[in-house]
Amino acid sequence: MTRLLLQRVRVPGQAGACDLLVEDGRIARIESAGASSAPVDAVRLEGDGALALPGLVDAHAHLDKTLWGQPWHPHAAGPTLMDKITHEREELARRGHSSERASARILRHGLARGTTHWRTHVDVGPDIGLAHLHGVLAMREAHRDVADVQIVAFPQTGVMRAPGTLALLEQAVRDGTEVLGGLDPMGIDHDPRGQLDGLFGIAERHGSELDIHLHDRGDLGAVTVEMIAERCAALGLHGRVVLSHAFCLGMLEAARLEAIVELLLRHDIAVMSHAPSGPTPFPPLKLLHERGVRLCTGSDGVRDTWSPLNNGDMLERAYLLAYRSGWREDAGLELALHMATHAGAQVVGAPRYGLQVGCDADLVLVDAECGPEAVVMHPPRRLVLKRGRVVARDGRCVLSAIG
Amino acid sequence: MTRLLLQRVRVPGQAGACDLLVEDGRIARIESAGASSAPVDAVRLEGDGALALPGLVDAHAHLDKTLWGQPWHPHAAGPTLMDKITHEREELARRGHSSERASARILRHGLARGTTHWRTHVDVGPDIGLAHLHGVLAMREAHRDVADVQIVAFPQTGVMRAPGTLALLEQAVRDGTEVLGGLDPMGIDHDPRGQLDGLFGIAERHGSELDIHLHDRGDLGAVTVEMIAERCAALGLHGRVVLSHAFCLGMLEAARLEAIVELLLRHDIAVMSHAPSGPTPFPPLKLLHERGVRLCTGSDGVRDTWSPLNNGDMLERAYLLAYRSGWREDAGLELALHMATHAGAQVVGAPRYGLQVGCDADLVLVDAECGPEAVVMHPPRRLVLKRGRVVARDGRCVLSAIG
Repeated sequence: MTRLLLQRVRVPGQAGACDLLVEDGRIARIESAGASSAPVDAVRLEGDGALALPGLVDAHAHLDKTLWGQPWHPHAAGPTLMDKITHEREELARRGHSSERASARILRHGLARGTTHWRTHVDVGPDIGLAHLHGVLAMREAHRDVADVQIVAFPQTGVMRAPGTLALLEQAVRDGTEVLGGLDPMGIDHDPRGQLDGLFGIAERHGSELDIHLHDRGDLGAVTVEMIAERCAALGLHGRVVLSHAFCLGMLEAARLEAIVELLLRHDIAVMSHAPSGPTPFPPLKLLHERGVRLCTGSDGVRDTWSPLNNGDMLERAYLLAYRSGWREDAGLELALHMATHAGAQVVGAPRYGLQVGCDADLVLVDAECGPEAVVMHPPRRLVLKRGRVVARDGRCVLSAIG
Repeated sequence: MTRLLLQRVRVPGQAGACDLLVEDGRIARIESAGASSAPVDAVRLEGDGALALPGLVDAHAHLDKTLWGQPWHPHAAGPTLMDKITHEREELARRGHSSERASARILRHGLARGTTHWRTHVDVGPDIGLAHLHGVLAMREAHRDVADVQIVAFPQTGVMRAPGTLALLEQAVRDGTEVLGGLDPMGIDHDPRGQLDGLFGIAERHGSELDIHLHDRGDLGAVTVEMIAERCAALGLHGRVVLSHAFCLGMLEAARLEAIVELLLRHDIAVMSHAPSGPTPFPPLKLLHERGVRLCTGSDGVRDTWSPLNNGDMLERAYLLAYRSGWREDAGLELALHMATHAGAQVVGAPRYGLQVGCDADLVLVDAECGPEAVVMHPPRRLVLKRGRVVARDGRCVLSAIG
């Protein structure tokens, strides 16, 4: 049995500093600092009174497409969604992009910033087949001791407008993908019935979850949510669907929003928002949270051809949620942190998540007095543990942990 | 003569790494790395190929009111501007707040993050008199070797609604304040003519610049800009006035905005925006810049009773300008950096600012490939020089530099 004693850290909800005993990757005991009778063979790590947060959860990443670690890439894509899709495919092809190498680089950056769990949308399409997926699957296998990565098969070039995509998505599920992705059934495919029936059919046959990118604005997005809810009802997919971005929820009149919230609650459909840059509307997160809608957040694409504005730091992402939402009170800052930790963990399916006895010892130490201060300052990550293993120290990934 | 050789740094606009020779606080030579024939008595500092940016400029701070360095203060003020004003006065009085100690703490934090120049609005009012001003003047004197601080006498509790304020503002100018502040002549005072005539009268008598907080929305703000412009014309105050926040500029119809921009240009009135949190509108910065309006940015109140959302990092502030504005292209990221450096320096009056021979050696080193990357990542500040003196290293203020 490997044992580790993390000494003198502060744990939310515990008075005073604590010692955490980790045995075989799980939190075995939490005791007042100095009071612990740790086994003599335990490796000791000094926490210096730092605040322990549970490992950060990036519930919406695009690890396969990043240019992280390559020279700075000035943004060059056009303004529309299709401009960005087309430009990215051309640019990655031109570079001979390796999704395995790229995803490994950005995952290690995330580890250094305290992320321990990911849900990543991986491009699947007739032009690239399952190449990105196989690259990310190989990366995931190589990093399985240091990161939990859930994969979404993501039809970035559309489903019905790119014939052959549905068959590829189904193959992706057979190859190890847990979640089926979708993309603007109206805005991109102009065939919402075709895309949604296709996706839900695969989900029914394989028991997959769904996570659908929904950029479509206003009523166009709202009608799509209604169509998704109908299919949740028909197939009994309660609690198995996430709407990513869902900009439309930030644009509806109160009564219409209320009706949509009712649908989200009835089918336990979760919402992912990363608080988009610029004037893009985004869901009213506090209202959704108060009504009981499950929420999560993510880094979205980092250092890719879509935008340079995401830097892959999930504690800073929590700050951006608060900043964009105008949350000044602690309750809002706590909600932002919740979205980047516990709430995200619930969405990506991490059963032993949290800073409690019995949980996986996935945690990050920061110099902050409390969660709200950690959000506002997003200070350097002193230490990151994944199942009790030191995976990053002082902002740098411990490569020997990866092996 | 004190000499310092900063070796192997990258300077925007220079190919390859450079050595910077600093003599008596100014940049004396910039040469290709290794090619320099530096005097043997020069102290050598290794830059390791880091990117040198000119010292960051915080052109809108409230150093006197911060609670920085004190225990976390959960936000407790009400939603309106008057709620926040009243709550702050009560809270600071209750704490026996010292503006000298408070401003020293937050200034040192700013130094550690690479800020070398400030314009700070200091509260003046009948209840507190000039106590905050004298505190900040003492702090400025104690830090004169490590920071350039310009002071605005700021009527936080209003001008006409708080009788005696005008006389205090005039006394503040006599006591060493360079700039006269104002606050929503309509929204707070309900007497725009009274406030503006009062302020411009003092400016005329003493040759002060003006920097007016203008939160008033929409047409209310726009009409106030017209009234300010009229007085600039009457008194010949071309290029001597800043509008801080100017939310109204983000809310006007195109033709109305165009007319207001014409006024700003005619009187060379500058605009300060820090990209406010939440849904608050803010000026169309790129449009203003392209039309030739001078811009700057600032941290606003950091860790005070107004909001916890500002953390005093001006490179992160540049990022927030880009994020809120949706700037993905390098041109936008460069503009954000420009607002936090050269453009801000122009507004706060720093004649020897920049990374050129003859300029003050005010600079900050970061690990970034280029300015846009420095904005996106706002990485740790490796080294901060103020007039050639090391004032911060690895994110910590070098206290011995302050003396």
